[in-house]
Order: sequence, then C-alpha cells, then structure tokens
Amino acid sequence: MSADNERLARQIGFVLEIDKLKRVLRQTPVTAGATGDARRENSAEHSWHIALMAVLLAEHAGPEVDIERVIKMLLIHDLVEIDAGDTFLYDRAAGAEQAAREAAAAARLYALLPADQAAELAALWREFDAGTTADARFAIAIDQFQPVLLNHRTGGGSWIAHDVEGVDVLTRKRVIEAGAPALWRMAEALIRDAIAKGWLR
Amino acid sequence: MSADNERLARQIGFVLEIDKLKRVLRQTPVTAGATGDARRENSAEHSWHIALMAVLLAEHAGPEVDIERVIKMLLIHDLVEIDAGDTFLYDRAAGAEQAAREAAAAARLYALLPADQAAELAALWREFDAGTTADARFAIAIDQFQPVLLNHRTGGGSWIAHDVEGVDVLTRKRVIEAGAPALWRMAEALIRDAIAKGWLR
Repeated sequence: MSADNERLARQIGFVLEIDKLKRVLRQTPVTAGATGDARRENSAEHSWHIALMAVLLAEHAGPEVDIERVIKMLLIHDLVEIDAGDTFLYDRAAGAEQAAREAAAAARLYALLPADQAAELAALWREFDAGTTADARFAIAIDQFQPVLLNHRTGGGSWIAHDVEGVDVLTRKRVIEAGAPALWRMAEALIRDAIAKGWLR
Repeated sequence: MSADNERLARQIGFVLEIDKLKRVLRQTPVTAGATGDARRENSAEHSWHIALMAVLLAEHAGPEVDIERVIKMLLIHDLVEIDAGDTFLYDRAAGAEQAAREAAAAARLYALLPADQAAELAALWREFDAGTTADARFAIAIDQFQPVLLNHRTGGGSWIAHDVEGVDVLTRKRVIEAGAPALWRMAEALIRDAIAKGWLR
C-alpha cells in the first residue's frame, strides 16, 4: 500500500470508528413529534445541532472568536464519549473520574488518525476541555445553552427526570455568560421560568 | 421587544425548529453496537458525520475548495427534509417531485430567520443543490461517499434491504469523482467488493 493509500485508510478507519458516537445517549430529550414520541438525544445529533448553532449565533460571540475553529471544536468535542460515555452535568460522583476516562479515550481515538491530524484534533479537544481561550469559551457557551433550550421546550426534560435543583442549574450554566452574554440572558430567563413553573426544584 | 431581542428570538425559533431533523430517518443503517442493535440513521447525525468528514478529508478536495463553506453547506444541506422527507437515491418516482417539495421547505424554514441570514443560508443550500461550484462538488462527494462506507461496513445495509443493482450504484455514485477523485477510487472499490460478495445485484 502506498503512503497516500495508507493515509486515506487511516482517515477512513477513524470515520468508521466515530460512527459509534451515534449510540451514546445524553439525558436531554429531543423535541417530540406529532406522535409525542419523546426520546433521548444522542451525542452525534447533539454535536450537529450545536455546530449549526455556532454558525447561526456567531454574532453573539466576541470579535476575537474564530467561528471556523469553534465549529471544528463542537464537531469533535464529544468524541471521547465513545469510550468514556456521557456524564450528566449534575452527577458529581461520575464527574470526578470523568477527566481521566476522557483523556484515555482521546489517546486511543486520535491515534487512529495520521499523526499530524491526531495532534491537531487532540489539541483542539484539549483547548475546548480547558475552556480558557475565547474560542473555547464560546464553544462551551453554545454546548451548555442547547440543553437549556431543549429542556425548557419539552416542559422540563432531564431536569424533571433527575429532580434537579434550580439553584444548581443557575450556578452551573453561568459559564455561558463568559462566552456569550446575550445567550446567558436568555438562558437565565428560561431557567427562572422553569423554576416558576415547578420544572426545577 | 428591542430589535436585538427580536433578532435573537428569531434565531432561537429556528434553532428549535431544526431539532425536528433528528426525527427524519434515512435508509442507511448506523454501524451496530455490541448488542447488534441495528437501526436507521437520522439526517441530523448523518449531517454531523459528513461535516466532520469534510474536516478530516479536506486534503482530498481541490485547492480551490473553501472547507469552511463546505462544512456550513453540509450542516444545512438536509434541513429541507424536515418538511420534504428523505428521498432514497434509487427511488426514481419519489425523486421526480423532490425538487418542488424541497424548494417549498426551504422557503418556509429559512423565512424563520432574520432576513440577512435567511438569504445567506438559502443561497448556500441552493448552491449545494445545484452542484456546479467546486465547494458544492466536494460537499456532494462527501455526502454521497458516507453511505457507501456505512452500507459496506454493515454487510450491505440499505442496498440489500432495497435489492439495489450494482450497476445503478456505480452510475449514481460516480458524482463523487468530480469532487474528490481519491474518495471515488475507494468508493468504487467498495462497491465492486459489495457486488462480488452478493450485497448488490
């Protein structure tokens, strides 16, 4: 096999491996159809939704944000869940071990790619995970805002299913403000409305 | 409501509307898990997969291709299916009415957005649909290549389910060559292997 063919074969091996993200379920429900068929969202369709949200809501990012990098971050940010699973934001016990599991997952998954791409995408994921750059803060804001929208639209969603406290949501979701103040104002209003309606304790 | 608030409200209305793409099922199966649980892919997770494929396989596009535009095209290309449904590539009767249904869907959906964004995204979708620019040709190549990978990996997938002819697949999928010759060489080899294995008539 030529070097070119081997490079493409590694890329395609990765493309097939990441198909598994479609089987990782999150706690958030998707909005129901005409038949009222509620089901949980998977991490692949979630990643599509927030990547497109970054396109649609780009004007709410600071001027220093590079939306193309944000979109790439959001497309890859959940790949580690293929090995590590999705951790519910309000599950403190699981959260503590999550970092180690996700680092091991990133090491295995990105090693499937040619070395230059593995290095680039692993660095982009670590940047998202650290959350200290302007691009990562906007990406995190979008990622955290989307389930607020879906939980509110579905009349409580995973908040009711897991008996979540309103004050906990207000505290955890405040991270949205650092990346997108306008989105935080809307998120805060939705969370306060959910508390008023009894969807959050 | 201020003009800024109304603009954001329209954007969020669109974000919630497009959640419906997660309910549109394609013919292609996702790869099975440990429990052998085969299921059909939905158009939202498909859109995630191919947007990330555009990132991973960018080097196989011509030098004139703008990958950021391709990614945006792929993120939105199936939104019209929310109203028009997914049409199986080999269903000729449905294909004939598809263009009119999709144009009507685009008119309704994009009108939910602020006018400047509606115009930009509708134009990007029409560019994909027409398939005459270098960006659209690469986007189409990726969109057409992905189900070949999944059908081959799952031992025939929708080809077997619908008793598809090998010569028909070779003809229809040849469009990949115009956007990404290296991906067409791989796709052709997979299709010929599927014919040899009896997964295609």
